[in-house]
Amino acid sequence: MADIDLLQKITSAAGLSRYGQIAAQLQARIVSGDWPPGEAIPAEGALAKEFGIALGTIRQAIAVLVQEGLLERVQGRGTFVRKGLSGASLMRFFRFGGADGATAVPRSEILSCRAVRLDKAMAERFGLPSGARGLAITRRRWLDDKPRLLESIWLPLPRCEALQQLPVWEWGDLLYPLLGSQCGITVHRAVDEVTFRTLAHDEADLLELPDAHPCAVVTRHAFDLRGTCIEYRLTRGDAFAFRYTADIR
Amino acid sequence: MADIDLLQKITSAAGLSRYGQIAAQLQARIVSGDWPPGEAIPAEGALAKEFGIALGTIRQAIAVLVQEGLLERVQGRGTFVRKGLSGASLMRFFRFGGADGATAVPRSEILSCRAVRLDKAMAERFGLPSGARGLAITRRRWLDDKPRLLESIWLPLPRCEALQQLPVWEWGDLLYPLLGSQCGITVHRAVDEVTFRTLAHDEADLLELPDAHPCAVVTRHAFDLRGTCIEYRLTRGDAFAFRYTADIR
Repeated sequence: MADIDLLQKITSAAGLSRYGQIAAQLQARIVSGDWPPGEAIPAEGALAKEFGIALGTIRQAIAVLVQEGLLERVQGRGTFVRKGLSGASLMRFFRFGGADGATAVPRSEILSCRAVRLDKAMAERFGLPSGARGLAITRRRWLDDKPRLLESIWLPLPRCEALQQLPVWEWGDLLYPLLGSQCGITVHRAVDEVTFRTLAHDEADLLELPDAHPCAVVTRHAFDLRGTCIEYRLTRGDAFAFRYTADIR
Repeated sequence: MADIDLLQKITSAAGLSRYGQIAAQLQARIVSGDWPPGEAIPAEGALAKEFGIALGTIRQAIAVLVQEGLLERVQGRGTFVRKGLSGASLMRFFRFGGADGATAVPRSEILSCRAVRLDKAMAERFGLPSGARGLAITRRRWLDDKPRLLESIWLPLPRCEALQQLPVWEWGDLLYPLLGSQCGITVHRAVDEVTFRTLAHDEADLLELPDAHPCAVVTRHAFDLRGTCIEYRLTRGDAFAFRYTADIR
């Protein structure tokens, strides 16, 4: 599931239909930055004219990209290129003390960042050949002067090379704005899997929790506008601070 | 959040607008059973004529009910009253052994079922006056000959009285079909909150797990077509079998 290429998905879902081909062309404009995040796309009538197709066909093509989350309709205002992921903070899985995890932005402390040779599974995740290189980052996140989350993050090289050049004290607290400004990567989608286990000795030390304390582990795959995986992350936090709500209809 | 009355939400969201009033009238037909679950509703043109309103207005009203999950559009076939909740099994939060929790239906064992006086918080949940009565059910769920989930379920009386009359060996493995056939209740929505703690002694005994073993607790509020809470449930299972995936765009 995490390995589906979005472009492939869009074209195969739409088959060889005319609107599927148009959807792929519109997506290319978003990926290239011709249509930047947050900006309105041209009116449907203008697009229909430009491509020499019926209004109904351009609407179908746009509907595909809305479904995929690349575009969004704003009532009465038009159709916009979606900005990068918002509301996907891993803190939303937790409630620490009085802090509401959904809105809190914890302080980030980079414990290490180094270039490594990726193992086979990790390289495959990023669509890279075996033996490719990546960045391995260890990050600790603080809230209310307590260490709350421990994160191991892998990013592909050379795409994230600019990050390697930047001193860690200039990184700030959030990774995705940095990937945008330094590497030109828009994080468009994330798939989080939650499981539970107990903390290893070194993890417990860094989180200031007892050895073998229960922890929630969130395994994240994040994807760019093309649907290519550009981040793999393991986040660990106190299981007893975990809280998640699902609304099913 | 779990206490929002759906009808109130529909009317207040739509204000005193014409389409909001129509939405409320359409909802009444679904709640009364005039329009049964799984059946198509009349064509938009026919409804517009019946209510003496514009086609655009009936479309807005229908859109409200689609948004609320009472109706669903099926491409090329029409608009249908949604059937009761599907895919909301609490097993979807777990993976036991080789079983894929998403599809497995565990065997149910009713350990107890008795009429009780509800405490204030529970009565309020069901929209009942203080001191109202309800059914308190303890259920254990088995998969691969092992006890997997322990459930404490509360249902309001007299709405669920028919269940009290039915011998527990005739209940079968699933509660919601039973609420439908015995009590005429369609479960339309569920809100599940997941947290973690350790098992109490008696819980550990029933789940055949060690004392103080970490467990996932799923707290469920389930709602009928009117948006009234008709079930409160606490489900406990082995934390290390927990697995949940969230896809964020």
